[in-house]
Amino acid sequence: MIVHGYFRSSAAYRLRIAMNLKGLGYDFRSIHLRKGDQRSDAYTALNPQGLVPTLETDDGAVLTQSLAIIEWLDETHPEPALLPKDPVGRARTRAFAQVIACHVHPLQNLRVLRYLKTEFGQEQDGLDAWCRHWIAPSLAACEALLASGPGTDFAFGDAPGLAEICLIPQMFSAERFGLDLAPFPRLRALRERCEALPAFDDAHPSKQPDAEP
Amino acid sequence: MIVHGYFRSSAAYRLRIAMNLKGLGYDFRSIHLRKGDQRSDAYTALNPQGLVPTLETDDGAVLTQSLAIIEWLDETHPEPALLPKDPVGRARTRAFAQVIACHVHPLQNLRVLRYLKTEFGQEQDGLDAWCRHWIAPSLAACEALLASGPGTDFAFGDAPGLAEICLIPQMFSAERFGLDLAPFPRLRALRERCEALPAFDDAHPSKQPDAEP
Repeated sequence: MIVHGYFRSSAAYRLRIAMNLKGLGYDFRSIHLRKGDQRSDAYTALNPQGLVPTLETDDGAVLTQSLAIIEWLDETHPEPALLPKDPVGRARTRAFAQVIACHVHPLQNLRVLRYLKTEFGQEQDGLDAWCRHWIAPSLAACEALLASGPGTDFAFGDAPGLAEICLIPQMFSAERFGLDLAPFPRLRALRERCEALPAFDDAHPSKQPDAEP
Repeated sequence: MIVHGYFRSSAAYRLRIAMNLKGLGYDFRSIHLRKGDQRSDAYTALNPQGLVPTLETDDGAVLTQSLAIIEWLDETHPEPALLPKDPVGRARTRAFAQVIACHVHPLQNLRVLRYLKTEFGQEQDGLDAWCRHWIAPSLAACEALLASGPGTDFAFGDAPGLAEICLIPQMFSAERFGLDLAPFPRLRALRERCEALPAFDDAHPSKQPDAEP
């Protein structure tokens, strides 16, 4: 399979973790977002939004949107499962993931920050405050949505899945924007358990072939 | 079941369409977003994000995030299916839905527009331009992502599903922000086919018990 990504993109980081958890190898194609690779004709022919990641499957299908790709991975490579078996557990896991994917990530995207800078005249301080303003309440919601009780070493069960796949990249971004993670003790404990696992550690932005300081 | 919603929320509008397509009745609870009902202690106990919709199931489970709720509906009430059967078709349908749910809707949310107004000093013109700026390229991407060929009267098959559930409310919002929909002929044709169906027509914001002019 071929993964088109960028080391610092949260969405690409999610897909790397999922591929690693499934034990799937892939060829990597770098789409350098700051240099504008995502706007090339060749790339927008694959991904009309010009976003990362894109996955090309072994059968030549071209899949976009990280959560949709990860659900596809889970349907076609069922073990280890990234979602619980029961419908309510699945709904809770997806909701947790969507708090991040639908309510935080899009607001701190590079293209959004650029618009706020060029059209609304915001400097870095204003941009960082904007990011922190959206990340903090969503992480608080995630903290509240975590399951608790026996068998929940991870967010919704005894192994990491879609929730952690979205959470860990978001916590990485939160720190880049200067957010204090102290108010989220359960999320921090969860991150510690995840980062001890090679699937998460190997997916870290700093360890990618296109990583920059 | 109980649905907590607001007539003009795109996310609540999605859930209404899904419930109607499945032929499921529900009790409605109005959460008046402009009056701040979503910040009450009673509501945030159900939905820590203070967003709509929330679904309370007959078993007392409390589900949040419209796409997660709709996947739960599809898993627990399989007919008519809201996603294709094949994994690639499912991935394409989810990606289409996520273009809207992850990349447009969060940027035009009431709370985001309020922040742009109070913190960045934007007037209505700036807010409308902001909304149109994010909606237009995403609708263009949706237009490009539509399936084509025989058996695709709807976005990804011969019946409406998750793609249309997200698209129709987004097109309603687009027009509220003054976006010209002429560049999206396939999406407009799709909307026409959907709006001829009672499941979509009955879910329209103007027909809800909490509707306002």
